[in-house]
Amino acid sequence: MGKYHADLRDIQFNLFDVLNITRLPQFGLEEGDYKGILDEYSKFVENEIFPSREPSDVHGVKMVDGNVKVAPELHSVQKGFHDNGWFALGFPADIGGTPVPEALYTACMSLATGANCAWMMYPGLSRAAMNVIRLKGTEFMKTHIMSKMVTGEWGGTMCLTEAGAGSDVGALKTTAKPLSGGKYAIKGAKIFISSGESDLYSNNIHLVLARTPGGGEGTKGISLFVVPRFKINDDGSMGATNHVQCSKVEHKMGIHASATCELQFGQTGETEGWMIGEEFEGMSTMFIMMNEARLYCGIQGESQGNLAYHMADKYVRERVQFGKELILHPDIRRNLLRMRAMGRGMRALCMYTADLFDKVHETGDHKYEGLIGLLTPICKAYCSEQGFQVAVESLQAHGGYGYCTEYGVEQFVRDTKIATIYEGTNGIQAIDFVMRKILKDGGKSITALSAEIIATVGKLDDATFKKEKELFGKVLMSAQSTMQHLSGLAQKNQFSLVLQHCTDFLQFASQMVVAWRLMESAEIAQQKLASTTGDEKKYLESKMVDFKIYCSHYLVHNLSIAKTITDLSDDVSALEL
Amino acid sequence: MGKYHADLRDIQFNLFDVLNITRLPQFGLEEGDYKGILDEYSKFVENEIFPSREPSDVHGVKMVDGNVKVAPELHSVQKGFHDNGWFALGFPADIGGTPVPEALYTACMSLATGANCAWMMYPGLSRAAMNVIRLKGTEFMKTHIMSKMVTGEWGGTMCLTEAGAGSDVGALKTTAKPLSGGKYAIKGAKIFISSGESDLYSNNIHLVLARTPGGGEGTKGISLFVVPRFKINDDGSMGATNHVQCSKVEHKMGIHASATCELQFGQTGETEGWMIGEEFEGMSTMFIMMNEARLYCGIQGESQGNLAYHMADKYVRERVQFGKELILHPDIRRNLLRMRAMGRGMRALCMYTADLFDKVHETGDHKYEGLIGLLTPICKAYCSEQGFQVAVESLQAHGGYGYCTEYGVEQFVRDTKIATIYEGTNGIQAIDFVMRKILKDGGKSITALSAEIIATVGKLDDATFKKEKELFGKVLMSAQSTMQHLSGLAQKNQFSLVLQHCTDFLQFASQMVVAWRLMESAEIAQQKLASTTGDEKKYLESKMVDFKIYCSHYLVHNLSIAKTITDLSDDVSALEL
Repeated sequence: MGKYHADLRDIQFNLFDVLNITRLPQFGLEEGDYKGILDEYSKFVENEIFPSREPSDVHGVKMVDGNVKVAPELHSVQKGFHDNGWFALGFPADIGGTPVPEALYTACMSLATGANCAWMMYPGLSRAAMNVIRLKGTEFMKTHIMSKMVTGEWGGTMCLTEAGAGSDVGALKTTAKPLSGGKYAIKGAKIFISSGESDLYSNNIHLVLARTPGGGEGTKGISLFVVPRFKINDDGSMGATNHVQCSKVEHKMGIHASATCELQFGQTGETEGWMIGEEFEGMSTMFIMMNEARLYCGIQGESQGNLAYHMADKYVRERVQFGKELILHPDIRRNLLRMRAMGRGMRALCMYTADLFDKVHETGDHKYEGLIGLLTPICKAYCSEQGFQVAVESLQAHGGYGYCTEYGVEQFVRDTKIATIYEGTNGIQAIDFVMRKILKDGGKSITALSAEIIATVGKLDDATFKKEKELFGKVLMSAQSTMQHLSGLAQKNQFSLVLQHCTDFLQFASQMVVAWRLMESAEIAQQKLASTTGDEKKYLESKMVDFKIYCSHYLVHNLSIAKTITDLSDDVSALEL
Repeated sequence: MGKYHADLRDIQFNLFDVLNITRLPQFGLEEGDYKGILDEYSKFVENEIFPSREPSDVHGVKMVDGNVKVAPELHSVQKGFHDNGWFALGFPADIGGTPVPEALYTACMSLATGANCAWMMYPGLSRAAMNVIRLKGTEFMKTHIMSKMVTGEWGGTMCLTEAGAGSDVGALKTTAKPLSGGKYAIKGAKIFISSGESDLYSNNIHLVLARTPGGGEGTKGISLFVVPRFKINDDGSMGATNHVQCSKVEHKMGIHASATCELQFGQTGETEGWMIGEEFEGMSTMFIMMNEARLYCGIQGESQGNLAYHMADKYVRERVQFGKELILHPDIRRNLLRMRAMGRGMRALCMYTADLFDKVHETGDHKYEGLIGLLTPICKAYCSEQGFQVAVESLQAHGGYGYCTEYGVEQFVRDTKIATIYEGTNGIQAIDFVMRKILKDGGKSITALSAEIIATVGKLDDATFKKEKELFGKVLMSAQSTMQHLSGLAQKNQFSLVLQHCTDFLQFASQMVVAWRLMESAEIAQQKLASTTGDEKKYLESKMVDFKIYCSHYLVHNLSIAKTITDLSDDVSALEL
């Protein structure tokens, strides 16, 4: 088995040097306190979560007498996670949580996810479902449901997908018929439901999209429902079966420890649920959960990519071929530098985005909400894709040993891939980014982002980063011309042409944003460099290297991506296929 | 399970329109004959091989009472493959083969490989081992060993890797001590031996690299030995155990049906072998097999990538989302066009390279041997990498269904990955390409290749392919400047800098070569277009589309790769890691 490693120094650099989370007075904590939390969390991850990763992958999920059972290792991990208060981290105090800055919470969750992504989906989904109830639920739901989710007795899920309704959620067929007492009878079948059923929880709380009798076609006729696996009595106690049946557990390439279920609602009897949020606003209520899940997909790529990188790093420092350690071979060294730059770039992006949630509260400036909206598809699509690619590179660095199961790196390849698909495929993210977050937004948020980026460029040292600054300047210019090209097409209603470029443009924008986050890190590192020595000096130098490598190996491709969009494109709809 | 599809039209286009294999008089066959062989082979692949793919993946390989057993399905596939004469295809008539042009043989083998790569490795390795015996073996080996391999009674392997000797083959520790009667006692342990043992064969013939008492350190002290699992008596009959023990079968990400074995030689008693080829020339003798295996890695990527593409193509034509088939959504259509261009580009490259073997015999011109040497690392590295990436794209096009096992596309992702690693990692290929095939060759072969490319460019229609021709011109210019840059570094003995660019330069060269093969296809298709209608017209148009898409989505990146090599590179050895 590969060895666990958390890059705590780099996380701290992001927390304190880049994001300055101690600026936030509402948490009442200082740098030392935050470091303490991070250290303790990381120890739990290393000693409890990480060792469960491979055995729970091998064991998978089993149906036993009609009930879904997870790997035995996961029960103690789950218990420890709640008992040690790690599930409560980041929740408000009034529901029993330990509030911390979003960036710290995200960094912690990333460590847990990297160490066993498939398991972390259980608490992750539960948390997201809780947030919907917290923001939109009735008092009953808060008192009798959410309270049991925060302790880990009950778990949550999100139920959107049906066999004929994947990306096209609006095509769903599940119905909700009003019953007496404000309840609804839910009937239908959902597929690909993560954590759909498991013995980690005594009850599963499903957030289910369904159509009420008055609901028209498409997404506008959809409402959201809270549907427990076992009925909940008026006093909050658990009742009889609510006729939610897991009819199948999927066999998948990876995340074997996560139960991906086909769920039947109302097939064996009446399934009751409560509406949450307003009727016909199910999609926007679900998007509270969905946006969190999308950012979390980014973390899944970032976290596993980074751990895969560290395992490769350890391997190439130990393995000797041709008389020297692999890390001393230029081709291998290049690959490791690329992996580190990408891994840290993704981390910088995800933590920056997390911090924007605190900025919203701190400043009340809607600009930051716009930035969150803009960066969500970037985090989701780019980090899931690149996390996968870094995992692939880590496998490659391990050679034949990487392809075998013993080092556990091939599991990263299998486990990361799903994040490019669920919570809206990366193609859907690209369309959301261009059509909604840029065009429909009238370019407001992207203009705000550009201003932030240009401010950082202005601070960068000309001498040290001459080539990078030149390249970045060219990229900024082609960003402008590419965007003009796309909005020109939109103005002429040539949306087919816009749509065929979304994936390319999202990659372009993502690489510009990641380069910008690495640029800011490099700039801060350079400032601090003079007063340091030893390991700290090496670390700061490595931050400057990350930016350079990212520019020369990734950002440089933006120039050709722009060419694809503006110069070389035929209309794909007219091409013979 | 996804549906099998072979693009026979495109294979025929390559065979007859591009490569004109009917020019070769020695086979005495006409276009109709070749088409007949291809059709029959394809039927066998569809009806016998393809159905074994998923069950043999699920079953894997088992150790039963100390013996290695493959999936039951594979026994009938293997029998049918020999009984129908498909294993004999491409071998010379004097050893019981059916000689055909190399391009046709390669096309057939590609179909079989795409349909079940893990199984095809058994006959594939056997064939490669036979070729070594055919070219370098003694009469005894030919009469008593090769004859049993051609019928499929016995199978072959290649045994290079040891625990401490992966890429660095010269570090191996296995010894060969002379015995009486010209035999040697082989002692040592080999790992990652594909087809190392299996019940598909009654005897396994291992080609083992080992060091004789006089063999110095490194690859120069190594010789090659023929080592059977069961002893072979003087009359050719099979004797007692030769003390070759399979001590472990590896658990791997993919190719589960292929037995990857750890083999112990001479641990439980004396293991006897015969030297094959000259003493201390083991590496060059093994390279007969290795070069074949490297080209075959390319076929593994090409073939599985193409089948994965066809499965995605079928899926997106059937799956309806947002009121229309996925293929009508521009983002999906773009992805499919990219996959097809890459898949057909790889096929064109592999078949062209295969045909060069016939050109060598046909013309006696050493130029073609040089081209084979140059294109071998390109086929191996680029097609294995891109075959994997197309498989990943196919999974993505299938959405959540692709991540689940039922369509069988995730298996392509798992199965293709190994080809980037074995038979020399892609990093090793890149170093071989730059250091040996270009620099050590004094640029002779690359100059010959450039001449061929420039001749094709000259024939391309300016009006239809204006943008592509312009781009290709720029790429040719930057090919020259990049190569000058690299040879300048080599002249200054800055090999560390050369080595850090090998992977990038191999990608650059590969994309230029694939674009060139697609360009020639497009040019031929355009000439034929006027006289055609219906499906044939659509097919020819699609060939022109492939070239355009490949240029706008892949070749365009050569401009940025060149920038990485010449403008943006720091010496990675000096960068903090």
